[in-house]
Amino acid sequence: MSLLTFGNPVFAVFAICAALGVLKVMGQGWWTVRQMFAVNGGYATPEDADAGLINPDPRPGQLDPHEPVERSRRMHRNDLENIPAFWVAGLLFTMTDPVAWVAYILMVGFVVARAGHAFAYWTAKGHDLRATFYTLGSLSVIAMGVWVAVVGVMSL
Amino acid sequence: MSLLTFGNPVFAVFAICAALGVLKVMGQGWWTVRQMFAVNGGYATPEDADAGLINPDPRPGQLDPHEPVERSRRMHRNDLENIPAFWVAGLLFTMTDPVAWVAYILMVGFVVARAGHAFAYWTAKGHDLRATFYTLGSLSVIAMGVWVAVVGVMSL
Amino acid sequence: MSLLTFGNPVFAVFAICAALGVLKVMGQGWWTVRQMFAVNGGYATPEDADAGLINPDPRPGQLDPHEPVERSRRMHRNDLENIPAFWVAGLLFTMTDPVAWVAYILMVGFVVARAGHAFAYWTAKGHDLRATFYTLGSLSVIAMGVWVAVVGVMSL
Repeated sequence: MSLLTFGNPVFAVFAICAALGVLKVMGQGWWTVRQMFAVNGGYATPEDADAGLINPDPRPGQLDPHEPVERSRRMHRNDLENIPAFWVAGLLFTMTDPVAWVAYILMVGFVVARAGHAFAYWTAKGHDLRATFYTLGSLSVIAMGVWVAVVGVMSL
Repeated sequence: MSLLTFGNPVFAVFAICAALGVLKVMGQGWWTVRQMFAVNGGYATPEDADAGLINPDPRPGQLDPHEPVERSRRMHRNDLENIPAFWVAGLLFTMTDPVAWVAYILMVGFVVARAGHAFAYWTAKGHDLRATFYTLGSLSVIAMGVWVAVVGVMSL
Repeated sequence: MSLLTFGNPVFAVFAICAALGVLKVMGQGWWTVRQMFAVNGGYATPEDADAGLINPDPRPGQLDPHEPVERSRRMHRNDLENIPAFWVAGLLFTMTDPVAWVAYILMVGFVVARAGHAFAYWTAKGHDLRATFYTLGSLSVIAMGVWVAVVGVMSL
């Protein structure tokens, strides 16, 4: 049976986790938009301070950094440093035909760790908690990456 | 028939759209280089101000931000916030064996929306137009991501 | 035979190269952490300056930019501008059933070029050498992206 079908439960779980990662990455962009709209500011690009439908009433300082916008951008950058690597590591890991429960722990664990990271980051819960969630997510991706490399080398 | 072959027209269209996204992401890096070379400045890294083949005639201020370079970097960042999510969402969406015309609209729509976004961003056409293209591209990826998650859950 | 199995040597080589890219991206995050811990500073987020397990002894200036941390972040950003595009381009290129030695040159060449880029960047070897490695890696991804688009169009 092909490993890359929704009939393979490991693939189905991977697809769900990957899709949640897609929605997180895209949603973080909209979260940044929401923070910009809340103060009509924090814009990164000069023409955004011009009058228009989004900005009917320009005021000075709309291009100044605004911490909630910057925080959402930092969360987005952190997502991009972790989630795309999960996508490819998880897909290739699925193709190694792993033991199912190990795959579930690594994949669902990654999603849970990233959800915790987002919560800790947005609510400014402190570096220790955020770093713990970051570490758990990172270790999941690293474990899958190492295993894929090992299986690849063994199959040559 | 396997869904992941160029004999599947939905896959072929996805592969074309994904490859155009690859070329956009890589091309944006070269666009940044072009802007840096146009003024021999806007460099982000200290040693780039040293003399060498790229920089035969160093001058003060080469490490200062230069708006065309920064604009290209912001475009690149925006690409990275959207295009990799399209890659994985589109691949997994293809594997759900979607209705072909829906897939074509979402995938080609994404490419067109991102081309419009790039045009609006580089020519500084204003926030409203750029945000419209951003929204269309984002909704395409979100739609595919939601559908993949639904199919994944239904197949468990 | 399916192209997407470890029994296909082109896929196996791609999987190894992609996994090395995963480990580079994740490792760069930990390299940034290492630089932050070396000076207990360079933090990007306000609450990281508060006392805690990671930061038992807060001092003024922990949120100021610190060049080794910023350099690692720039390396990370450069990775994200190149490596995810390699992942998707390489996977789709593998599915075009390419001539094996061409695939090996492009894929292994990308890994070697990015390793050279990281070495040149971290040791501040100068713009010329870093740009050479960047160019080689970029050309590999562009070549695969163009080929995937061509095969996609020809198969419609």
